[in-house]
Amino acid sequence: MPLIDRRHLSFVLDEVLDAKSILQLPAFATFDRDSVEQILDAAEKLAITEFLPSYQLLDADDARMENGRVALPAEIGRALNAFREQGFFRMAADAEHGGLGLPRLIANAAFLWFQAANISIANYAMLTQSAAELLAQHATPAQMQRYLLPLVEGRFLGTMALSEPHAGSSLGDITTTAKPLSDGRYAIRGAKMWISGGEHDMGENIVHLMLARIEGAPSGTKGISLFIVPRKRLDEEDKLTIWNNVTLTSLNHKMGQRGTVNTALSLGEGGETIGEIVGAPGQGLACMFTMMNEARIGVSMGAVAHASAAYQHALGYARERLQGRHPDNKDPASPQVALIAHADVRRMLLLQKAAAEGGIALALYLAKLADLKKAAATPGERNDAGLLLDLLTPVFKAWMSEECLTANSNAMQVLGGAGYTRDHPVEQHYRDNRLNPIHEGTNGIQAIDLLGRKVGMAEGRGLELLLAEIERTSNRASQHPQLASQSAALDAACVALGSITKHLAGVRRTDGPRASLAKASMYMDLFGTITFAWIWLAQAVEAAASCPSEPGPELDFRLGLLQTCTFVFERNLPRYRQLLEPLLSPDDPVLAMRDEWFGPAS
Amino acid sequence: MPLIDRRHLSFVLDEVLDAKSILQLPAFATFDRDSVEQILDAAEKLAITEFLPSYQLLDADDARMENGRVALPAEIGRALNAFREQGFFRMAADAEHGGLGLPRLIANAAFLWFQAANISIANYAMLTQSAAELLAQHATPAQMQRYLLPLVEGRFLGTMALSEPHAGSSLGDITTTAKPLSDGRYAIRGAKMWISGGEHDMGENIVHLMLARIEGAPSGTKGISLFIVPRKRLDEEDKLTIWNNVTLTSLNHKMGQRGTVNTALSLGEGGETIGEIVGAPGQGLACMFTMMNEARIGVSMGAVAHASAAYQHALGYARERLQGRHPDNKDPASPQVALIAHADVRRMLLLQKAAAEGGIALALYLAKLADLKKAAATPGERNDAGLLLDLLTPVFKAWMSEECLTANSNAMQVLGGAGYTRDHPVEQHYRDNRLNPIHEGTNGIQAIDLLGRKVGMAEGRGLELLLAEIERTSNRASQHPQLASQSAALDAACVALGSITKHLAGVRRTDGPRASLAKASMYMDLFGTITFAWIWLAQAVEAAASCPSEPGPELDFRLGLLQTCTFVFERNLPRYRQLLEPLLSPDDPVLAMRDEWFGPAS
Repeated sequence: MPLIDRRHLSFVLDEVLDAKSILQLPAFATFDRDSVEQILDAAEKLAITEFLPSYQLLDADDARMENGRVALPAEIGRALNAFREQGFFRMAADAEHGGLGLPRLIANAAFLWFQAANISIANYAMLTQSAAELLAQHATPAQMQRYLLPLVEGRFLGTMALSEPHAGSSLGDITTTAKPLSDGRYAIRGAKMWISGGEHDMGENIVHLMLARIEGAPSGTKGISLFIVPRKRLDEEDKLTIWNNVTLTSLNHKMGQRGTVNTALSLGEGGETIGEIVGAPGQGLACMFTMMNEARIGVSMGAVAHASAAYQHALGYARERLQGRHPDNKDPASPQVALIAHADVRRMLLLQKAAAEGGIALALYLAKLADLKKAAATPGERNDAGLLLDLLTPVFKAWMSEECLTANSNAMQVLGGAGYTRDHPVEQHYRDNRLNPIHEGTNGIQAIDLLGRKVGMAEGRGLELLLAEIERTSNRASQHPQLASQSAALDAACVALGSITKHLAGVRRTDGPRASLAKASMYMDLFGTITFAWIWLAQAVEAAASCPSEPGPELDFRLGLLQTCTFVFERNLPRYRQLLEPLLSPDDPVLAMRDEWFGPAS
Repeated sequence: MPLIDRRHLSFVLDEVLDAKSILQLPAFATFDRDSVEQILDAAEKLAITEFLPSYQLLDADDARMENGRVALPAEIGRALNAFREQGFFRMAADAEHGGLGLPRLIANAAFLWFQAANISIANYAMLTQSAAELLAQHATPAQMQRYLLPLVEGRFLGTMALSEPHAGSSLGDITTTAKPLSDGRYAIRGAKMWISGGEHDMGENIVHLMLARIEGAPSGTKGISLFIVPRKRLDEEDKLTIWNNVTLTSLNHKMGQRGTVNTALSLGEGGETIGEIVGAPGQGLACMFTMMNEARIGVSMGAVAHASAAYQHALGYARERLQGRHPDNKDPASPQVALIAHADVRRMLLLQKAAAEGGIALALYLAKLADLKKAAATPGERNDAGLLLDLLTPVFKAWMSEECLTANSNAMQVLGGAGYTRDHPVEQHYRDNRLNPIHEGTNGIQAIDLLGRKVGMAEGRGLELLLAEIERTSNRASQHPQLASQSAALDAACVALGSITKHLAGVRRTDGPRASLAKASMYMDLFGTITFAWIWLAQAVEAAASCPSEPGPELDFRLGLLQTCTFVFERNLPRYRQLLEPLLSPDDPVLAMRDEWFGPAS
């Protein structure tokens, strides 16, 4: 079984997102559609030969701590070596930093294969590429030479070192300190928690991008600065020298994604831990957001990849496994039908197809926005793409990761008892995927980011742009008789989204952010539900536009997309309507609930 | 932290379900409210001292197969011994069968503690008690002597042996055969799959209640008979003799509930496997349904117990863990607030409180129906209680297990990254609980059972009774100003349920069961959503009826129930509205979807 439907991936690239328009931008002119196809071929092949085989193996044995070091299965390093040798670490970085300069649209499409095959290994690459992106935007030329180039080559691996034992979501409360040294560098002291890939022997070095407070800095987020803290120090000729006293204190044992070692680290214990500042003092969190936004998209791409891989597995199983008969067949001697013949199994498969293929389309739409933000012809276009990307990042991260988890739960359900066992990978996809609504900012925090910051940014221009984009799709859909009712339904939903957004802005003005943000998760659900319906209608419009008249796989492919869109508009989009009343209600039952009403103190 | 809020449990027993009315029935007259309290005390204590400590331990090491035997941690046997010694195996069985003859209302309330503490151990007891119930209803006096009594005492443990490798949900396709022997017993040959507790050394014997076909029986379910197949044979004096050739062929390695060993067995290989028939030939499935219905309720009680245990854990964590500040507090030097102060955390806790406490109330309502079915004063009352119980069993099994799984997911989310690690039990609750929508008939099958059989049974009298019960609650609620709008909302929902039920019966008549049953899962969602809102309104009515005027824990307790009910009616009940349109739609997108549209064959 495939991990991702390649026909659908090409359809999204070529028809839905018009990849050619991106490849024609001067920044990406060295690539054409053929070279893109070769890259996708290579990614698929490498993912299947080097990443996939150890998927279950990495889950069986958790990473162990041995004499302060991390013992990881050799399969991870071997896969990353192959990934490095074939140049995949370099995909998206600019040529000036040693990268291939691929559009994100293509780089991310290729990366989905690795996430679908083995998320635990792909995470090391995702963090490394996000770290590189941060340094590309904020580091000094000397730092780029020392750290960015090896990250782009995949010789060094990156981490994001933000959380601390007492400060997970609340980064303003971190206490790790940075004391200026005479040479402009800093001595870092403190403890970090939840650091993925925080200690291991793969690659030549680890580059921790770490938040800390310079002594005397103000409290809160304004006092946070960003530091490069390498595992091994570099000398003045950029040669690796001694260990930088980044000490592994413990490992976190997770429900899934076990091959991605998750660590607690201490800094500056038993010897100096030296860091170099990135960006200006006090600008740490702003710089870090470059990496966090990358990682947020990467996280939900992982969710989408899980949805796709498990869907394909469940689909294959449902087509092969014979079980039961149609309810109108009372002849017990007649042959059994395949699971896929049962209406409820079909429903569960449709739900998964919707999540996986809608998720892939949305993931790559965001990637295209990143390309346009960087390389579109005019500053206006670049700015607009950036606003849309900022707006949609929390939506993609939170809403899509939830929907893809639901998809994975349905994949298990299709397999029944077999799906609950380790004989099939779907239970692992489900466990692995459960992390995605939690890390890189919980989905609750994404909702607050969306409603509290993103929607109001630039006087709401991001949302205006999105609604205009949706309107364009809807107008095109209204030309197709079979999509006209969906166009109307989406229009109505957008009107509701607009008025709810205005209403909540009013609540914020009159009652303060506490009252408005209590609605944030419902608002996220509203926003995501509509965005998801839109990306499906955008796919349906293209599917309908080029439907062949003769039967065959191509017609089946397009009718499948159209039918899935119908399913989304019947079963999924209407969810938004039940949200409107509670979103408008001034008496929020959540805010009215008191601590002592939940139950006696223990 | 408690596993279950004892105050709430008492409230459900005394005020919502009027336990006194059950204890006053002649069948249960040996118990009074004080003795019930002692039993609940003992259950809570035993669950915490003997079941809870090994909860995570049993998860860490999967059962292993050693020389054809199962190696299980000793903690399971020790806990079951204590359970046996304190008489808990005997709780619900009749006195004539060696039981205590407790009402199910009380026995199930007590059993929830064991399920909340350690589901993997509780399962052995649940299966044994369900097997005993089956034999109490269908076995001969001699079989009762030989098998039922030791099951009631907990000396023998029971299993249900239905599925086969090629026949999971489709029991009509089982092929295990039973060949009559000269002494009236049968030689069983075949293979069974997914048998929980199918092989181990605990207790003196294992009693498999096994479905098989007597040679020459018709195909399909009509040809299925039920057999007692002991692990060790009994001689004519009921002494254990030799092994009965029930061979362990493999173990299933599950995502959760790992302490409940799950086996594949072969029968009659290398020697005779002897079984005794229970009930008449061809009546096997009908007899088995006694046990299956018990187990379905037991399964969803497990889901409810997980929801409760994880909720209590998340609540304790949310009250202790300091993180962040309110969004209107811009002073980073101010102290952090507890997680529970954040609106979104509060929402997630409310959702869990609703599932856990609504689930407990519904579970015990079903237990009360079982008591009334057995022991109510008049045949009419007994019949009505039976119809209501039959109707609600699939709803409780399917809808409640889904809702409680969602609750567990929210428990993890409250803990954030910590919830995803094995440092807290919530990730295990989530994994353990994921089985409940699958086993004992997948939730899809429960939906078909509800719409295809239960709703139409006895000319729809079960549904009439339920709607009348809901109406009584609603009328009482309408007397309380604060509950009047909820009463009206529930009335409207019931009207919709009635008309959808009629509509689908019409679809079945005109278009056949395939068309109507394609809507089964949505119908289940509709039915469950309304049932859940009702059980909450029933709790709110009692909470409001006896609200003290002075502040204190009792007022807090009741206001908490009222507020949770408000939450359910704002956030949960309105879900049903989005279901109406697709339930009524003649063009079902699921039925219209074709196999080849899902994607290319692999």
